[in-house]
Amino acid sequence: MQGLSCGTSRIVGCRFSVYPMADNFVEIIKGALEEVNTAKVWMKTDDVSTCVRGRSEHVFDVTKAIFTNAAKTGVHVVFNGTFSIGCPGDSDGDTYMSEDDVRLNEEKVQQERVEVATQFSLYPLNNPDYMQIIADQVAVADGHGTFTKGVHYASRLDGDVNNVFRTLEEAFYNAAQTDERSHVTMTAAVSANSPSTKDK
Amino acid sequence: MQGLSCGTSRIVGCRFSVYPMADNFVEIIKGALEEVNTAKVWMKTDDVSTCVRGRSEHVFDVTKAIFTNAAKTGVHVVFNGTFSIGCPGDSDGDTYMSEDDVRLNEEKVQQERVEVATQFSLYPLNNPDYMQIIADQVAVADGHGTFTKGVHYASRLDGDVNNVFRTLEEAFYNAAQTDERSHVTMTAAVSANSPSTKDK
Ligand SMILES: [Ca+2]
Repeated sequence: MQGLSCGTSRIVGCRFSVYPMADNFVEIIKGALEEVNTAKVWMKTDDVSTCVRGRSEHVFDVTKAIFTNAAKTGVHVVFNGTFSIGCPGDSDGDTYMSEDDVRLNEEKVQQERVEVATQFSLYPLNNPDYMQIIADQVAVADGHGTFTKGVHYASRLDGDVNNVFRTLEEAFYNAAQTDERSHVTMTAAVSANSPSTKDK
Repeated sequence: MQGLSCGTSRIVGCRFSVYPMADNFVEIIKGALEEVNTAKVWMKTDDVSTCVRGRSEHVFDVTKAIFTNAAKTGVHVVFNGTFSIGCPGDSDGDTYMSEDDVRLNEEKVQQERVEVATQFSLYPLNNPDYMQIIADQVAVADGHGTFTKGVHYASRLDGDVNNVFRTLEEAFYNAAQTDERSHVTMTAAVSANSPSTKDK
């Protein structure tokens, strides 16, 4: 899949947190970050969340890698974040938009096997056809084999972390392509190693 | 503040998780839930999140109480969820809409003092004036004294958990009132007891 940013220079952002349910959560988060190459994104962490901005492919590459590194410790870890494109207040002129499309963490993360359960929601803003756009992307997820079912206010995906993030990225990409200036956000809660029985 | 549902029978929902960063997270979550009176809301928990639905005031009452109970353990705990109203697929005919407006957990939670840092975002769907609606509610938060600053894709609130949830509820309420059939969602990450320095 080509990046969203190709030829359009539309910056994508994700504000997210990775929550390890463990006493040594600081160590797990720091370890997860250390292993990830973030050279192609703008990144800022505060006491509530981390914000990553840049070309679409690098935002998905980096967020998937940070989460996967934390999850492969075996601890119950959840990624919870919101991806955004087209926010009128956002600055497209960021220097990170001139990076190429080679993903820096993909090869390594593709070797990991982490089973995840995910709930995601798409929010196309300022678009009267938004319910159809959402339905279309649920159909895309269904085609990927990751879609499990709809729940109140969200759609559920199950499977390997690489497959689930591929569905998230493609759903977001497609929804963002519906208009050249579209403003779309997507929330995702991605859970690994939960002790609860999977409700799929 | 009157509930959103008053006279309009519009059901509000929140899909959320409470993440205690501790080895005994299951115990903390179970303890937090046990202390909360959920009689006036529909509630379902799965392995990824919990969904609460009913009158607006009870949805905010219950979510605040669950989070506050977990946070008062002193452990680093984060509430991360999305509030929704007016989703075309949602059923307004739920029996929980006939409950009165007396909040079952408010008195108890008002006695707790938990300092929180919050990032929230409002998403009024299918509304060309959505950026103005968002700006208006940031101004409301500013008036409450809880607004700290804007960050990429979100607004930051700091203060006591009761004050911050009051701002969240009022911002959501006001945004939902802009149209009698409006569909509005609001994400919120509410963090307590973080070891990181507050970035406010
Ligand atoms: Ca946690």
